[in-house]
Amino acid sequence: MTKYVYLFSEGNKDMRNLLGGKGANLAEMTNIGLPVPQGFTVTTEACTKYYEDGKVISEEVEKQIFEQLAALEKITGKKVGDTKNPLLVSVRSGARTSMPGMMDTVLNLGLTDEVAKGFVEATNNPRFVYDSYRRFIQMFADVVMGFPKSDFEHQFDRIKEQKGVEYDTDLTAEDLMEVVDIYKKEYLKHAGEEFPQDPKVQLLEAVKAVFRSWNNDRAITYRRLNDIPGSWGTAVNVQEMVYGNRGETSGTGVAFTRNPATGEKKLFGEYLMNAQGEDVVAGIRTPKSIDTLKAVMPDCYNEFVRICGILEDHYRDMQDMEFTIEDGKLYMLQTRNGKRTAHAALRIAVELVEEGMCSKEEALLKVEPKQLDQLLHKNFDQDDLKEAEVIAKGLAASPGAATGKIYFTADDVVKAHKAGEKDILLVRMETSPEDIEGMNLAHGILTTRGGMTSHAAVVARGMGTCCVCGCGELVIDEATKTIKTKDGREFHEGDYMSLDGSTGNVYGKQIKTVDPKISGNFETFMSWADQTRKLQVRANADTPKDATVARNFGAEGIGLCRTEHMFFEEERIFNFRRMITAETLEMREEALEKILPYQRSDFEGLFKAMDGYSVTIRFLDPPLHEFLPHTDDEIRPLAESLGMTFEALKERVESLKEFNPMMGHRGCRLAVTYPEIARMQTRAVIEAAINVNKEGLNVEPEIMIPLVGDVKELQYVKEQVVTTADSIIREAGVDLKYKVGTMIEIPRAALTADKIAKEAEFFSFGTNDLTQMTYGFSRDDASKFLEDYYKKNIFEADPFAKVDQEGVGELMKIAVEKGRSTRSDIKLGICGEHGGEPSSVEFCHKLGLTYVSCSPFRVPIARLAAAQAVINNK
Amino acid sequence: MTKYVYLFSEGNKDMRNLLGGKGANLAEMTNIGLPVPQGFTVTTEACTKYYEDGKVISEEVEKQIFEQLAALEKITGKKVGDTKNPLLVSVRSGARTSMPGMMDTVLNLGLTDEVAKGFVEATNNPRFVYDSYRRFIQMFADVVMGFPKSDFEHQFDRIKEQKGVEYDTDLTAEDLMEVVDIYKKEYLKHAGEEFPQDPKVQLLEAVKAVFRSWNNDRAITYRRLNDIPGSWGTAVNVQEMVYGNRGETSGTGVAFTRNPATGEKKLFGEYLMNAQGEDVVAGIRTPKSIDTLKAVMPDCYNEFVRICGILEDHYRDMQDMEFTIEDGKLYMLQTRNGKRTAHAALRIAVELVEEGMCSKEEALLKVEPKQLDQLLHKNFDQDDLKEAEVIAKGLAASPGAATGKIYFTADDVVKAHKAGEKDILLVRMETSPEDIEGMNLAHGILTTRGGMTSHAAVVARGMGTCCVCGCGELVIDEATKTIKTKDGREFHEGDYMSLDGSTGNVYGKQIKTVDPKISGNFETFMSWADQTRKLQVRANADTPKDATVARNFGAEGIGLCRTEHMFFEEERIFNFRRMITAETLEMREEALEKILPYQRSDFEGLFKAMDGYSVTIRFLDPPLHEFLPHTDDEIRPLAESLGMTFEALKERVESLKEFNPMMGHRGCRLAVTYPEIARMQTRAVIEAAINVNKEGLNVEPEIMIPLVGDVKELQYVKEQVVTTADSIIREAGVDLKYKVGTMIEIPRAALTADKIAKEAEFFSFGTNDLTQMTYGFSRDDASKFLEDYYKKNIFEADPFAKVDQEGVGELMKIAVEKGRSTRSDIKLGICGEHGGEPSSVEFCHKLGLTYVSCSPFRVPIARLAAAQAVINNK
Repeated sequence: MTKYVYLFSEGNKDMRNLLGGKGANLAEMTNIGLPVPQGFTVTTEACTKYYEDGKVISEEVEKQIFEQLAALEKITGKKVGDTKNPLLVSVRSGARTSMPGMMDTVLNLGLTDEVAKGFVEATNNPRFVYDSYRRFIQMFADVVMGFPKSDFEHQFDRIKEQKGVEYDTDLTAEDLMEVVDIYKKEYLKHAGEEFPQDPKVQLLEAVKAVFRSWNNDRAITYRRLNDIPGSWGTAVNVQEMVYGNRGETSGTGVAFTRNPATGEKKLFGEYLMNAQGEDVVAGIRTPKSIDTLKAVMPDCYNEFVRICGILEDHYRDMQDMEFTIEDGKLYMLQTRNGKRTAHAALRIAVELVEEGMCSKEEALLKVEPKQLDQLLHKNFDQDDLKEAEVIAKGLAASPGAATGKIYFTADDVVKAHKAGEKDILLVRMETSPEDIEGMNLAHGILTTRGGMTSHAAVVARGMGTCCVCGCGELVIDEATKTIKTKDGREFHEGDYMSLDGSTGNVYGKQIKTVDPKISGNFETFMSWADQTRKLQVRANADTPKDATVARNFGAEGIGLCRTEHMFFEEERIFNFRRMITAETLEMREEALEKILPYQRSDFEGLFKAMDGYSVTIRFLDPPLHEFLPHTDDEIRPLAESLGMTFEALKERVESLKEFNPMMGHRGCRLAVTYPEIARMQTRAVIEAAINVNKEGLNVEPEIMIPLVGDVKELQYVKEQVVTTADSIIREAGVDLKYKVGTMIEIPRAALTADKIAKEAEFFSFGTNDLTQMTYGFSRDDASKFLEDYYKKNIFEADPFAKVDQEGVGELMKIAVEKGRSTRSDIKLGICGEHGGEPSSVEFCHKLGLTYVSCSPFRVPIARLAAAQAVINNK
Repeated sequence: MTKYVYLFSEGNKDMRNLLGGKGANLAEMTNIGLPVPQGFTVTTEACTKYYEDGKVISEEVEKQIFEQLAALEKITGKKVGDTKNPLLVSVRSGARTSMPGMMDTVLNLGLTDEVAKGFVEATNNPRFVYDSYRRFIQMFADVVMGFPKSDFEHQFDRIKEQKGVEYDTDLTAEDLMEVVDIYKKEYLKHAGEEFPQDPKVQLLEAVKAVFRSWNNDRAITYRRLNDIPGSWGTAVNVQEMVYGNRGETSGTGVAFTRNPATGEKKLFGEYLMNAQGEDVVAGIRTPKSIDTLKAVMPDCYNEFVRICGILEDHYRDMQDMEFTIEDGKLYMLQTRNGKRTAHAALRIAVELVEEGMCSKEEALLKVEPKQLDQLLHKNFDQDDLKEAEVIAKGLAASPGAATGKIYFTADDVVKAHKAGEKDILLVRMETSPEDIEGMNLAHGILTTRGGMTSHAAVVARGMGTCCVCGCGELVIDEATKTIKTKDGREFHEGDYMSLDGSTGNVYGKQIKTVDPKISGNFETFMSWADQTRKLQVRANADTPKDATVARNFGAEGIGLCRTEHMFFEEERIFNFRRMITAETLEMREEALEKILPYQRSDFEGLFKAMDGYSVTIRFLDPPLHEFLPHTDDEIRPLAESLGMTFEALKERVESLKEFNPMMGHRGCRLAVTYPEIARMQTRAVIEAAINVNKEGLNVEPEIMIPLVGDVKELQYVKEQVVTTADSIIREAGVDLKYKVGTMIEIPRAALTADKIAKEAEFFSFGTNDLTQMTYGFSRDDASKFLEDYYKKNIFEADPFAKVDQEGVGELMKIAVEKGRSTRSDIKLGICGEHGGEPSSVEFCHKLGLTYVSCSPFRVPIARLAAAQAVINNK
């Protein structure tokens, strides 16, 4: 018989897959003797079973829950439903990996009218009891029953207003009893039945609600953004309540063993007295710094510092802890490896090694590759900044600088983004998990309430998005979409503001941003990554400038230079259009002749920027109509300058139109029809290489033929390339080596890679197109329906961001195996967007590719991901 | 050392791969003692080597050629270049499979000025010698040097005019000497050097020319149309000349052992006296029936009849032979299994079995499956025909009836076809191999010159295209694109005419056509095929009418019913558009409710037509914008009738536009977004099945979900289907079985077929889309560049017509293996266009599919191809 429910004393930290992160760590803390309120964990397997059984809790699981509940009664000496000494519990989700705020929690479960009455007598603290009861009813109504939270919040606000108080703590016991009555009526109204008075019913319903919350919209979105499989499920932790709201010697808080923003080795945290845990995280009241606890409750503070030391030593990493003080006694409710900014992550990783706490390899695993992105984010241009006035100051919640137009709801952000707006700031009183999508799209987030551990701050740090929070000087009117400064200035939707997430400064105008500088910890840390990784990391770069940026970020060559980007400057595009509209081969060659010098000098620049490294140049790829205008108004002047009639040009434009351009006349298909283009591009590449080599550089260009589906296409184009190149080299009397290879971006190329490898000296996986063809949907069109796919749990991740290992990856595997079967030393790379995505980099490592190539800013991510791939696959 | 050149006496009929069909049969005829002018064959391997060596004849091959030439001199007692008794030879191509007229031939090779002079003395027949020499120069200039044939023809016509003669035979020896002089000057003009006077140079150049002709445009086109791989290469036959142009007791002809149009067991053929072989085939003069030879040269005739008997017995099939009579002596120049009409093929196959000449299995291989198409072609509507006047009568060269607009060049036919014209007739003085593409597109072909074995007739029969040839009563003016009848009536380009290829009648108007009737031989023959084949053959049919046609052609069920075709009738499309433009689920369901009765009754009709067989219904597939109008003028009235504003409908139309509709929101993706559509379609299918089963039928519907790429898509849609279906079945209180399966048409579906098969009870390969996605080009857009692919020998076959076994086929194989790994009894079919294409059917047989499904008219083809697949893969 499967064991679905574990007492905390039965688990340990290595059982995270079964017990979830929270459950495993509660068990571990229990084992090492820390003061943890006891309880039990319903396993992730029970969650999976719940879904398999058609969303019911089986008798077997129910039986085990109640057995462990009975055990818990024994341990605590309290009894569920007892009016004298009732056992109240919290019910919390806990997945393998932390998903802060994504899923649901119910506190004070076990309270009923009868229990409350008895509990008042027992504690002689009616305010505490009814504060707990009103919290319980509201959470149960929201989380378990799914009634609108705002209906209850409005009632609460009404009472506060009626009683003339500002904070919930100012309400009396009588006030709170009134709230409980009103809440129960509100509940009856929504549910059509009374609030349940059987604690066991409450418990089972709450457990089911947590299971269900695994598949709420925001959890699905969070999983997608954080690469968490839907199949994992969540565990449920049922824990004896301890009460931070029992009075002024009670409280609750959140703390980190090191500063999660800077990495400084110093206790960092916040707490609220007379409050329950959710109050701190939700930012309802602005909490106090953990340092001040030393003066308020020195014993508790010292005990907490001692425990922090034990936990960090035990886990050998920075810890993020939740605690509650009940009547002066400290309880630990959670510990986990703390989320941190990239800056902090690097500092902590480097310092942990220096402190002898962990090895370099362990340290390499302590930084999320994606986080490095933050380090590469822009800062304000200092000159521009001098002119700017600080209009308000909030908490520096997540570093970086952001400038943009302000929007007041996450939905408005999404709309603006869809409308093509790029620089967007999200401005909110406070954020909530529903806002996740808008937060992800915003360049910066500003909140007026909540602290450093508020939802906005935690999420923004995780995303690497600049965030200023708790900025109480600013007043938001969400109805009119206006924000007011202390001195009465107003900003409306669409106005520019700027945020400095490293200082908390808010500016009332657009400020230029500049590229970031990188700390010494970065260099140290990345050098460890470079020593460890096997994969080479190249960049996708089309200009000498991009190539230089990439090289500074550690790129070891160019994996993809898209030559068509070189055609768009004014004079070039003119000649390119002449080429497209040419009626004869001679006219086409004449136009190409004009383009040649530009391409050659571009390539010279690239080769110089990447001296000593390989540079892979992809030949013309997009369909020709992309280079022509499409409206009559644009066609007319172009026709004139090309010396064509309007009708003739219009006809040419029409004739190039395609039903499905993605599957049209492009890639090597262009070179088959117009081999003269490939010959010109070859000439530009080879002459450029000869020129720079004469200057003492050592360049070996790689020519890459795109969109090959059949070896004969490659043969044909390669013959053009080789004939042209060899004759130039012969004429120049030099000894230049070059390679000719192909993209693998068409399923058929992967399937016939053995044949293609006979001609191709290298393969580069073009996973963007390969993903499109393998799934049969285009990136542009799919965005319309993929939302439904995420919502309905059909897709968990965006296959254009993360390599679909099952389908696309299978084709890659086939291509690697077949390619090597006919050319054992074939060079293999990837140059799709996926080349800088950590899970995809790991997949490429496992396939044994030679290199990954990604955008310059993702090069450090790829370097770290490649190192982690080695460590994780030892 | 490889042997590249074989004397005829060294080969036999089983060496066709090496010696080509012509070479192998010349060897075989030599072996069985028939009168064959001797010679040697340069092998197909030499051709392949020629291309591998960069289009040169290696020393090794050259050496062997001259060695065998010396051997031939010994055999014949003649010497190359000898002025007394010169050895002249023909140089003819000969691939593994006959490609009539596609490649090049040179006759009378070895003639030089000196040889001609001596030969005149030796033969005392200057007319014959200079006739031979002028033919040789012209062929050499055309075939070997590639000079424009017309330049020589014009000179020849000029001389004929100047001398006032109608036929070439009317020219005197002096006239012909003049022609030779003029030709030599013409040659010098083009070549910049004199006509070569060294027979060995002539020979090597001619052999190279034949090798080159393997890759001329028309040969490539022919191979593509006839599924012949480019890698085969052609052999070259060098044979001692015998002269049909030696005078009035000389001649040349072509004959069949049975009638190639009807299959009747009776010698059938044509000949010309005082002519060389090419004259008969090219239709320069209209030849005489072989029967008349009996009177002219009884000995020759009897000898020929005897040889015909020997050859048919020997090859156990109808023979197509070329012969030459030189000074009253008969020589055999070629024999091969004769091409024949489908009617003839069936009759011959059935009669050969009856005659005990071959087994049923051998007989099944004697009919090309594609040919059966001819039998299914339309005939004239007899009532309509009564009204029609015969304006001319020609030879009934290829059966069937055709009506259409007339075009005077193959190019014009191609243009008209591209412009969307469907009913096209090609009208030509005579056709030539350059016309192959236009001939393929025309519904009927009419020529004014040439006989039953003329190019037009042979090619049309092969294609199954209706053809009337040699219709000398009509006069064509190609310049003004006009055709005139005897009584002066004129028809111009675009005017309607009709042709009866079974009678030779030509009509001057459009005549309705009707479906064909099928002979008893067909039934007999097809019953043998049905006994032999393992594959089931189903039809793609969307209406009860199509289903009935299909069933009459032997379809055993429906493999693909495209439900969207049911939406296009007026009232249906209105409600379907209401569905698309609905703003709420309720409005959408209301519109679907209106469509339900139509779908249900359509399905009832289909089920009735296919009683006892499986019917596979594919759910809605195309993107929704295909159902909406796109111009403002069409949108306006629709908006009104839908009760929407113009702007609102316009916006909806715009919002549905896609960049790449082929890769857009379609197939099961629609059902994910709008599950209510799938539910309505399920209801229609299940209710229809229940209704017809109540009437005593036995229907088990198969619901097919299109465009699945991930098992979770199928899971989601299947849940909609199963929930709906089961509740209807439960409510009806009946016991209805149904299956839910999927198309495999997305590469990812094939790659993950093991997972998909867990949900899918059957797979149907949608090879149209699978081909598009695997190659990464859309059918519509690819047509623009595929021409270049054929020309440059990159593609040999149209992958949309013939399954690409290397790429697409590999995915099919993966899908079959993976699918069976998780569901061993999974039903497997194909429903793409390829399901009726013989080589694809064979591939499906080898994969072990359950069935193929194709358009109703291709069902007999698939039945025969399936039987041949069994025989060929024993």
